[in-house]
Amino acid sequence: MSVELTRPQLDALRADVAQGRDSAIQALLADLHPADIGAIIDNLHLEEAVYVYRLLDSELAAEVLLELHEDLREDLLNSLTSREIAEDVLEHIDTDDAADVIADLSEDKKREVIALLDDPEHREDIEELLTYAEGTAGALMAKELVSVRTDWTVARAIVEMRRQAQEVDHVYTIYVVDKDERLCGILPLKELLFSAESTRTLIKHIAEEEVFSVTTDSDVEEVVNRMRKYDVVVLPVVDKNGILVGRITFDDVMDVMSDEASEDYQLASGISEDVDATDSPIVQVRARLPWLLIGLAGGIITSRIIAQYEGQLRIDPTMAFFMPLIAATAGNVGVQSSAIVVQGLASGSMGNVKLAPRMWKELRVALLTALVCGAAIFAINFALEQTQALTYTVSIALFTVILTAAMFGTVIPLLLDRLKVDPALATGPFVTTLNDIFGLLTYFTVGHLMYGILT
Amino acid sequence: MSVELTRPQLDALRADVAQGRDSAIQALLADLHPADIGAIIDNLHLEEAVYVYRLLDSELAAEVLLELHEDLREDLLNSLTSREIAEDVLEHIDTDDAADVIADLSEDKKREVIALLDDPEHREDIEELLTYAEGTAGALMAKELVSVRTDWTVARAIVEMRRQAQEVDHVYTIYVVDKDERLCGILPLKELLFSAESTRTLIKHIAEEEVFSVTTDSDVEEVVNRMRKYDVVVLPVVDKNGILVGRITFDDVMDVMSDEASEDYQLASGISEDVDATDSPIVQVRARLPWLLIGLAGGIITSRIIAQYEGQLRIDPTMAFFMPLIAATAGNVGVQSSAIVVQGLASGSMGNVKLAPRMWKELRVALLTALVCGAAIFAINFALEQTQALTYTVSIALFTVILTAAMFGTVIPLLLDRLKVDPALATGPFVTTLNDIFGLLTYFTVGHLMYGILT
Repeated sequence: MSVELTRPQLDALRADVAQGRDSAIQALLADLHPADIGAIIDNLHLEEAVYVYRLLDSELAAEVLLELHEDLREDLLNSLTSREIAEDVLEHIDTDDAADVIADLSEDKKREVIALLDDPEHREDIEELLTYAEGTAGALMAKELVSVRTDWTVARAIVEMRRQAQEVDHVYTIYVVDKDERLCGILPLKELLFSAESTRTLIKHIAEEEVFSVTTDSDVEEVVNRMRKYDVVVLPVVDKNGILVGRITFDDVMDVMSDEASEDYQLASGISEDVDATDSPIVQVRARLPWLLIGLAGGIITSRIIAQYEGQLRIDPTMAFFMPLIAATAGNVGVQSSAIVVQGLASGSMGNVKLAPRMWKELRVALLTALVCGAAIFAINFALEQTQALTYTVSIALFTVILTAAMFGTVIPLLLDRLKVDPALATGPFVTTLNDIFGLLTYFTVGHLMYGILT
Repeated sequence: MSVELTRPQLDALRADVAQGRDSAIQALLADLHPADIGAIIDNLHLEEAVYVYRLLDSELAAEVLLELHEDLREDLLNSLTSREIAEDVLEHIDTDDAADVIADLSEDKKREVIALLDDPEHREDIEELLTYAEGTAGALMAKELVSVRTDWTVARAIVEMRRQAQEVDHVYTIYVVDKDERLCGILPLKELLFSAESTRTLIKHIAEEEVFSVTTDSDVEEVVNRMRKYDVVVLPVVDKNGILVGRITFDDVMDVMSDEASEDYQLASGISEDVDATDSPIVQVRARLPWLLIGLAGGIITSRIIAQYEGQLRIDPTMAFFMPLIAATAGNVGVQSSAIVVQGLASGSMGNVKLAPRMWKELRVALLTALVCGAAIFAINFALEQTQALTYTVSIALFTVILTAAMFGTVIPLLLDRLKVDPALATGPFVTTLNDIFGLLTYFTVGHLMYGILT
């Protein structure tokens, strides 16, 4: 069952570590799931974590290692010798996890660890996985899978499956390949277990031919979309010749989904690196400063624009009162428009979206929004007995700014997407800053005209 | 394989529908996965969609229905009679999907459809699922599962499993229950298939006792976290007495994850309802206006604050130049701080976070950020040869505003969370608006002081 330590329990564990009461520590962790042990160790300092880690037997320790917070995992790995990593960690975990662990090591240590791997097949598998580019299906997949040949009988297949299944923690599906190892179908476990086939039947007669697969160079987004669309728990991966080379399971895809959502959310919030609350202040500042400085640069530009219209402000200083309102609304509208495009692009629900129809639709939304907001601010300023010139200026500028901000918000992510840049960038302070600038430019231009006409 | 129609293909399909060329339509859709057929129908107008839908045989049609865009699905369901829904749709789909379909119907139609369900067990199951509150494990689970009793032999279990498995599309795990239907363990398919147990062995001797479960009233967030933490493909659901009542599969959890991420992202972008690019302009405006109006109200308040300091602006109109810079930076910092807290709360990585240590950490981040930004703007204004009073005012105000915005951004989501309100609300225009107001208040207060000292 799920376990979380309370503060006093954690303090007690720390005291046990400090005093070297190994049996008490082992009793506390006994029967816990590796994920729970990992969550407990995440709360310890490095030297305490290493101490507890070394008390675990190596198979459990390897699984716990995979559950640790990334930073702690790296530190802990650095405290292990190459031989310990190769023999105690990598031998006990799946190839995909092993490749992830190795990828975190320095180049020299990487080579040492790989050379120390005893099992040549395991070594080759891991080396292969390290060759695929990050963000591709090849880099995400594991080599562990169970496959049978079309020309085997059920009886032979069962013997072979038993042998292969010992190497594979979770068997969700049996893959069917031809004599050249090309993927030709699947054999669902359920069929095998519950259909009363003769043991002499050939596999090709009971295999399901329809099988969804991806290739090693497929983008992970494609993997996520395919798994979600077809509700499959595990996707086979083939190379460019259709040869079965690995499989991707739902848990890896869930991690990718969650990372992508988190990244989009952070971009929308103006955070440029993957940070969380547990990261050090320096790391957090580094992730947060870039957008703030871009915002500052935008603020300087805005100040220059306003300076150009200083004459206007001298004619009516009250115009300054509504600058934040105009800038804020422009920013809000732009971000809303971008967010809708970014989500449409991510979910694929927009398909191959054409620029013109998308903008026409957004324009209708913006027109309606602009009418409501423009009328509202007109009524308010009328009620507040502002001058006619100011009342018209604010309403007309607000109306115009909502339209242009919506257009910017729609076009920018679509353009970024075509330039193969992550469109989510557009929902961050980038669009807000741009809209601040154009919003104020519009405001003063309208003001200049209105005060010319109405005063 | 995945299929997407090109524009000309879609036009051809439309022409086929208009001309009633049924066999051409059926040929196009033959052998496609329901998800692909759904994606194609999503591109059609309602009457075309209904036409194509009626050409499908009812088992396939029911599966396609589940894949349609929500709005189209509702419209299509409204065009079907209660008998058609009960007999052609609900009989062919799992109980969890059936409950979702029924939940979308009007109260009267709901009763009619339920009364028309032939199979009393199916009806009872669906009625039970409809009783659980939205957002709980009970509302997410399906009743279809395969279970065996501890006191059965393997031989008897296999006979029972074959019978039950006919009702269940995907069997991932066999659940083991005692004579009172209480969950006591699982029987992984792999063990059953690959271990050479005697058929007379009792199930209790081969069952795995460790099993992760949730209760019907568990929050879906808890379900997601548990499935992700323990990498299980299917979670059993028990009632308060520990009796096994359903199961939740990974695909449902992926949908929840994706919905939650999308909701957080939309809240952060100032969109208050779940809308997407395909929704009508009216629906989009309704989702977008509330935050814009809150932003407008904030703008009005800001204008009143500035009006209070009109005297200050008359002393130095150039102070107005830097209002957008101050407001924008305050907004950006506040949103960054909130986003980090919101993500920490969502992922559970912050645990039972204490307010004081969290604020102390954020304060250190903010201090560093404020020093860099304050120094930068000081240098720039110095270089631009602004007056001493203005240069000091902008730098000191920016420094202060970054600190207060970071504190607001940290406290507000934590408070919302304690009040059981979704903390993600805090990353939207709410924090931005609040920070705009306080930012400008700070700016003018500092200005009043500085101009008093330095001029």
